Amino acid sequence: MKSILTMTPAAVFGAATLCALPAVAAPKDAKTVKPSRPNIIFFLIDDMGWCDSEVAYGDSLYPVNRRFHTPNMKKLAEKGVIFTSAYAAPVSTPTRTSLMTGLNAAHLGVTNWTALEKNAPTDASGDYEKIANDSIVPPKWNHNGISPTTPLENGYTATPMVQLLKDAGYYTIHVGKGHWSTAGSPGANPYNFGFCVNVAGSVAGMPNSYYGEVNYGNTKEKWSPQATMNMAEYYGTPTHLTEALTLEALKTLDYPVQNKIPFYLYMSHHGVHTPITPDKRFVDRYTKMGLDKGQSNYASLVEGVDKSLGDIMQYLDDKKIADNTIIIFYADNGGNSENKKKGGELHTQNLPLREGKGSCYEGGIRVPMMAYWPGVNKPGKRVDTPVICDDFFPTILTMAGVKNYSTTQTLDGMDISGLISGKGKTPAQDRELVFHYPHQWKPYRLDDIDYLTSMRKGDWKIVYRQRTGALELYNLKQDIGERNNLACANPAKLREMAKLLSQKLRGWNAPMPTLRATGQTIPYPDQLIP
Amino acid sequence: MKSILTMTPAAVFGAATLCALPAVAAPKDAKTVKPSRPNIIFFLIDDMGWCDSEVAYGDSLYPVNRRFHTPNMKKLAEKGVIFTSAYAAPVSTPTRTSLMTGLNAAHLGVTNWTALEKNAPTDASGDYEKIANDSIVPPKWNHNGISPTTPLENGYTATPMVQLLKDAGYYTIHVGKGHWSTAGSPGANPYNFGFCVNVAGSVAGMPNSYYGEVNYGNTKEKWSPQATMNMAEYYGTPTHLTEALTLEALKTLDYPVQNKIPFYLYMSHHGVHTPITPDKRFVDRYTKMGLDKGQSNYASLVEGVDKSLGDIMQYLDDKKIADNTIIIFYADNGGNSENKKKGGELHTQNLPLREGKGSCYEGGIRVPMMAYWPGVNKPGKRVDTPVICDDFFPTILTMAGVKNYSTTQTLDGMDISGLISGKGKTPAQDRELVFHYPHQWKPYRLDDIDYLTSMRKGDWKIVYRQRTGALELYNLKQDIGERNNLACANPAKLREMAKLLSQKLRGWNAPMPTLRATGQTIPYPDQLIP
Repeated sequence: MKSILTMTPAAVFGAATLCALPAVAAPKDAKTVKPSRPNIIFFLIDDMGWCDSEVAYGDSLYPVNRRFHTPNMKKLAEKGVIFTSAYAAPVSTPTRTSLMTGLNAAHLGVTNWTALEKNAPTDASGDYEKIANDSIVPPKWNHNGISPTTPLENGYTATPMVQLLKDAGYYTIHVGKGHWSTAGSPGANPYNFGFCVNVAGSVAGMPNSYYGEVNYGNTKEKWSPQATMNMAEYYGTPTHLTEALTLEALKTLDYPVQNKIPFYLYMSHHGVHTPITPDKRFVDRYTKMGLDKGQSNYASLVEGVDKSLGDIMQYLDDKKIADNTIIIFYADNGGNSENKKKGGELHTQNLPLREGKGSCYEGGIRVPMMAYWPGVNKPGKRVDTPVICDDFFPTILTMAGVKNYSTTQTLDGMDISGLISGKGKTPAQDRELVFHYPHQWKPYRLDDIDYLTSMRKGDWKIVYRQRTGALELYNLKQDIGERNNLACANPAKLREMAKLLSQKLRGWNAPMPTLRATGQTIPYPDQLIP
Repeated sequence: MKSILTMTPAAVFGAATLCALPAVAAPKDAKTVKPSRPNIIFFLIDDMGWCDSEVAYGDSLYPVNRRFHTPNMKKLAEKGVIFTSAYAAPVSTPTRTSLMTGLNAAHLGVTNWTALEKNAPTDASGDYEKIANDSIVPPKWNHNGISPTTPLENGYTATPMVQLLKDAGYYTIHVGKGHWSTAGSPGANPYNFGFCVNVAGSVAGMPNSYYGEVNYGNTKEKWSPQATMNMAEYYGTPTHLTEALTLEALKTLDYPVQNKIPFYLYMSHHGVHTPITPDKRFVDRYTKMGLDKGQSNYASLVEGVDKSLGDIMQYLDDKKIADNTIIIFYADNGGNSENKKKGGELHTQNLPLREGKGSCYEGGIRVPMMAYWPGVNKPGKRVDTPVICDDFFPTILTMAGVKNYSTTQTLDGMDISGLISGKGKTPAQDRELVFHYPHQWKPYRLDDIDYLTSMRKGDWKIVYRQRTGALELYNLKQDIGERNNLACANPAKLREMAKLLSQKLRGWNAPMPTLRATGQTIPYPDQLIP
């Protein structure tokens, strides 16, 4: 079978020599082969819901899709591959640490978002008093996030994917949100993960403000380590943060583009996370459509990142490198369904999906994803095979032609490049994907979000309510909204799923809460079925 | 005559092809020539006085020199060239904008430091009420600093030196203090000047704190745009800012060193600017020596940058690139002689030099400078030819082998690379070097600092007191302390010097104050001599 790697000169060169030679030297024995390994842009949006664009990730467009104007995402969908069943962890840091390590959040023990400051678990958003009388007690977890090589207390140390790209000669650029770790830790600094350049990346999980007029929160009144750095050029100007980050990203591309060095751009937008405030360039469209204030504001944030995507694609065209630049479009978790400033009715934001960010129901973990591999993928193709954030580590390295790398960790993720190219080995349609959130998210209780674990396998999904010990079973093909619990109707499937999920959790030594009454760890799902 | 450029393979390659080819491609017709253009490190210290090290820039060590322990500077002096008459502008921004543009501060109209915020002239440190009744009124000047290409109100637009290096394939790195412009201006962002990487550079002219324990001032209480960015890794740790910036600089060198790309590192330390607080690693040495608290604290800051220099030299050795890395050591203006926290007696800090930072007397403008060009310069050589910040633009480009570049500005500075190499054309011993400070520095009056202009030509120096119209003449060879005014004794020399100085100021359309009583611009020096 013809290897997918033979389809571009880049890949030919890559497959032959990439690991041994830096990008800047031409191989002695390959005089006629142009060193043109593909550039890779990982375009990451924060808190963007599955239905929050004009791209139909479902069988058709849902009513929620109709609220958004995203011509550039639509354009990418026409050229690229649409993943209809792409998953992330239910909150930000676990997804981002998975991306960097190729490990599942439950394996990393990084199961919740990391605080700005060290040694500050964020259960109940850090308000521990609010859970002091709960029947369940959150586990110890790696609340300091991940570290590249240095051991880190309450953190997980693993070989970072970006370092391997850099070692192979890739010019690695970080722009925007980092959020892998806490202040005072190596993971607070993107350079430590192997980035050559960092704009704005740090411990911040959200911006203090999207507005240049208030320096993106870099004012004495608003300042916290969240205040987006490296943006002084735009202070006091009407430049929206999404726009500013895009402009800065394009500046950092100058060097590799000018010198024909393959680059990896991790374009990690703060948009469309809270604060949900209007992007004034776009908000009028939505109020005119009749959306309420919150919905309009949110849609304007989405259109802002859509413009960013378009501007980057335009840049690639202008520089004549579009044909050699892979774009991966992804969101770090489901859309927020628990923020009143988003308008509409709470918990309906991601319909038909159940719930949103924080939850292990589909609304919290199923995310928009596209991949465009010029000259390789079939345009507009749809892939239904479930994929997860853990998969990008081996996938990106494969697409970059980096082989035979070594890592301190054994990857959980699988190479899904074959799903994009349509060739080569691909993960099974029915492998197990695990989502584990042993935390209370907010200072108040949210039963469809807090303390859930779930696993998808093929069309089946099991949900474990850690607080009550209840197990639920859904068939996602028939019931994407997870409304029809089949646990009683199909005990054999439930048992099978519970067993597989428990094996995973045990194998990873996943953080498990304890019951306050007994001090005992909660049962694994298979212990609940006699 | 043999060109100095033939002395290293790097330069040979550079001279032949540098402007045409990026760094990463080997020239077709030069198979045996290794592309090894020299790396260049510009090691810039803030507010370091001429005598503030173990290096004797004077004929011998002065008592002030004895207060410092700087083994690495001493080591560099043994290997490199000592410039005994190196000059800078009297305050920070004018020197830094000269370095970037090759223009004199009086020509740029950037004659004072730039504020954090736009459109805020810093005369009297921004406290305009304090000068409302002064007999002299500060001129309009380019208080928004410089801009790379974009027009900037109250700013000067010029081709940046770093951009030319980058365009020639150099990997250009900014670490530390920027301070070329104000927030909301293009010059606030090092990327706009052609840097490929920026760590911490912005509008800040000083740090809020040197201490990691208080996040270098990145706390709600202390925050301002001065708070050093990109340092979250060290928050809450005892890492001194000088150390943190050094560590970050070395990280950014990974990429070019690994890939054999020539780099330009602008290592721009905040040290040894205020706040004068102890560097705890070193301060004990100085208190034990009997220095007072302020003197000890200051000396510890100096030793901190000395360690940084040593760490960088060690890194170059470890990476086996020391032989191909030029180091230029420089300070941005004279030592501060007006800060009580430095200990000792005010205005004596730079003895035997008169006054300090802000002043156009020698204490404010004569600065430590060394240049080490491995394999090219004669070790330990001393150069007495006066040089100035304006000169680095053409000098660095020559050393990098970049030729036939074009700039929107006509450079004031001259190529001094021949002074380092000992070969080729060099500036005359007696060219005119101009220093112009049409401002009151502090909210209070300092007669030996405020509103001065001076010019050095050979051994002679003229000082123009703008407030009073007095002209002074000194012979620096006989009187480095500028105590013996020869204006009356040598009226012919005074006249000659006044004429030359006035020609310069007129030619540059230098900002000139007005007299409040008449509203007229103050006279040029030659108008004061009938």
